[in-house]
Amino acid sequence: MSDIKFIPGGITAPQGFLASGIHCGIRRNKTKRDLALILADVPCAAAAVYTTNIVKAAPITLTMNHLADGQARAILVNSGNANACAPGGMEAAQACVEAAANALDIKPSDIIVNSTGVIGQPLPTDVITKAIPKLVKELSTDSAPAAEAIMTTDTFSKSYAVQCIIGGKSVTIGGIAKGSGMIHPNMATMLAFLTTDISIDSNLLQDALRDSVAYTYNRISVDGDTSTNDMTAILASGTAGNPQIIKKDADYDAFVSALNTINLKLAKDIAKDGEGATKLITCQVRGASTEETAVTIAKSVIASSLVKSAMFGADANWGRVLCAMGYSGASFDVAKVDVAFLSKSGRIEVCKQSMGLDFDEEQAKSILNRSEVTIEVVLSDGTGSAEAYGCDLTYDYVRINGDYRT
Amino acid sequence: MSDIKFIPGGITAPQGFLASGIHCGIRRNKTKRDLALILADVPCAAAAVYTTNIVKAAPITLTMNHLADGQARAILVNSGNANACAPGGMEAAQACVEAAANALDIKPSDIIVNSTGVIGQPLPTDVITKAIPKLVKELSTDSAPAAEAIMTTDTFSKSYAVQCIIGGKSVTIGGIAKGSGMIHPNMATMLAFLTTDISIDSNLLQDALRDSVAYTYNRISVDGDTSTNDMTAILASGTAGNPQIIKKDADYDAFVSALNTINLKLAKDIAKDGEGATKLITCQVRGASTEETAVTIAKSVIASSLVKSAMFGADANWGRVLCAMGYSGASFDVAKVDVAFLSKSGRIEVCKQSMGLDFDEEQAKSILNRSEVTIEVVLSDGTGSAEAYGCDLTYDYVRINGDYRT
Repeated sequence: MSDIKFIPGGITAPQGFLASGIHCGIRRNKTKRDLALILADVPCAAAAVYTTNIVKAAPITLTMNHLADGQARAILVNSGNANACAPGGMEAAQACVEAAANALDIKPSDIIVNSTGVIGQPLPTDVITKAIPKLVKELSTDSAPAAEAIMTTDTFSKSYAVQCIIGGKSVTIGGIAKGSGMIHPNMATMLAFLTTDISIDSNLLQDALRDSVAYTYNRISVDGDTSTNDMTAILASGTAGNPQIIKKDADYDAFVSALNTINLKLAKDIAKDGEGATKLITCQVRGASTEETAVTIAKSVIASSLVKSAMFGADANWGRVLCAMGYSGASFDVAKVDVAFLSKSGRIEVCKQSMGLDFDEEQAKSILNRSEVTIEVVLSDGTGSAEAYGCDLTYDYVRINGDYRT
Repeated sequence: MSDIKFIPGGITAPQGFLASGIHCGIRRNKTKRDLALILADVPCAAAAVYTTNIVKAAPITLTMNHLADGQARAILVNSGNANACAPGGMEAAQACVEAAANALDIKPSDIIVNSTGVIGQPLPTDVITKAIPKLVKELSTDSAPAAEAIMTTDTFSKSYAVQCIIGGKSVTIGGIAKGSGMIHPNMATMLAFLTTDISIDSNLLQDALRDSVAYTYNRISVDGDTSTNDMTAILASGTAGNPQIIKKDADYDAFVSALNTINLKLAKDIAKDGEGATKLITCQVRGASTEETAVTIAKSVIASSLVKSAMFGADANWGRVLCAMGYSGASFDVAKVDVAFLSKSGRIEVCKQSMGLDFDEEQAKSILNRSEVTIEVVLSDGTGSAEAYGCDLTYDYVRINGDYRT
């Protein structure tokens, strides 16, 4: 496998992709961008994975239809309104897509569309369609405005690009994502959009994306709430010149590796920027009977309100870690659990063979007071391992969500 | 079915039961009672249901052994320490039970024992065994000290008694319970102890308790965390003089009804007194395809961090209700959901056929600003209905749990 390196540029890093992000007026705050467009200069293989919430936003359903042929050229996204459970949602999504298709001179079915924001309010279609010409005019190789335009309560934008050699050619993948509440992806994800110049069959692109999502976005949780609008989509233009990937060979594996690298970076950013969060919490499980068991345990620990509150208070309350493991539904030898906390300030063992150790509370506090903390869980059941990512539960989460709409 | 009425007296309301609660020294605060005892003057049929968390506290395992014969006479409980994941936990639980058995002159296996408090610290056995004589000496018909002694972060004690006529005799059931964090009972419950003078076969008593728990404690959630120490136990002395219940007849149904009445009252108290909570949230689901579906939906709604935060902020954000329904795993017609909020300040419809209604935000706020709020969900799939009970997510939940141990 070739080396994978991060490069500047986000979703416009792969050749042939442009993006824009403007304030069109869905949000009251005029300094907040709320409409984004990503455009490929050639038809692309396209794939997406969606929320498993059975209450789905209208644009999710529309995009599912559009991607039936595995092809797309553009991605249109607004923030400030989820277009979910709102009267006329499907018509509104279609009107926005048609306006963009006209302005770009492409087929409506080649557009991936999504919305994010408050649920249940009608999408202001006119506001969006009127802004489409400006949105198209501002298309450029600058990825930043689009990354900003999809943000809701995010405090920073998430944008990365990676490069590696596949099939003898330099291949680039760019991606942007947003959080930061209603985050508990489950066989699905929150919003993330990826571009790449690789040449790949669209069915394999779908497989690669699904596999990568399982390892990355599906391993984060902010608040246990799986959104109605989750989507990760990818456009692959094929202009990198690599021999088209048509089977699950070494090139496919190299591509999935690169995809995992960028998706994991975006996923961890989302966890770290969870609503109100002050720190990124990683739960690392080793020695589980299977990888699936390790995933189940790691996700249960990072999703526990009690563990999250303890991490906020830098309280080495490892009993809550065992408690969350115990109700996770996973099977493990409950008498043989070791727990340690680690961060840049050091590592401290707090539980051995499921019994508390005497440990220095001050040292534990200084370890837990860092902005990135790992909860290490070691079992003695096998070789299954996994990581999951979350954040602490803070006063600000309650503040942000006690009064989100008003 | 006979009328069920609430009477004063808690667990000492049924004839032949005494209780006590003292400060023995597990807790540092000398004004907080931390050791409770309940004693029947005759051998009782006994039953219990336990946590489904596979990490179980030592006293849970010990009690399971003791109740294998369906008989018991006393219940011993301490707060301030969970005796879970702590070295020597089983020996400590046995030592406490033996001290109590000696003092009461009964068999150790006739004692139900449990602990509640912090996980992972050794139980101070000596502190408890030394206090047993005083605990026994203070046994009286006053239920209040025992109800207080099992409290952890609870802000008020939970104690009730109900009376009804069964088999031509007056039958009484008394109960005490505690919350108020790590509350997400699942085929199990948090701590609740019940006494009754009814005459009933111990297998049927077990069935009655299990059925009642499913309708009451298993329908509440404070924070989604299922505790390692959950237990509900009941002692039935048989002194009421009713013909012994030996099959699931009308008398059995009347008993389950009375049991549901007291357990529901205790369960709602626990939800209302959830850590940091300012209000009791009831989710009432009607028109579901089955009762099980209604339960799944109602529990998902009251457990959602986003719904709970919105309730704290008195924000009529019904989109989060639909979102939580959608990821619950329950199947329902997603296009036909009606949602209304109600309280003593009135009722307001906010969503009809899954679409937002125009509603008066000020009126909604005044309805949601009450201390008891109901979220009414009406589906069009059948006649299944259920209620679940939770509380809001507040700054104080984070404060309490960010620094619980210190």
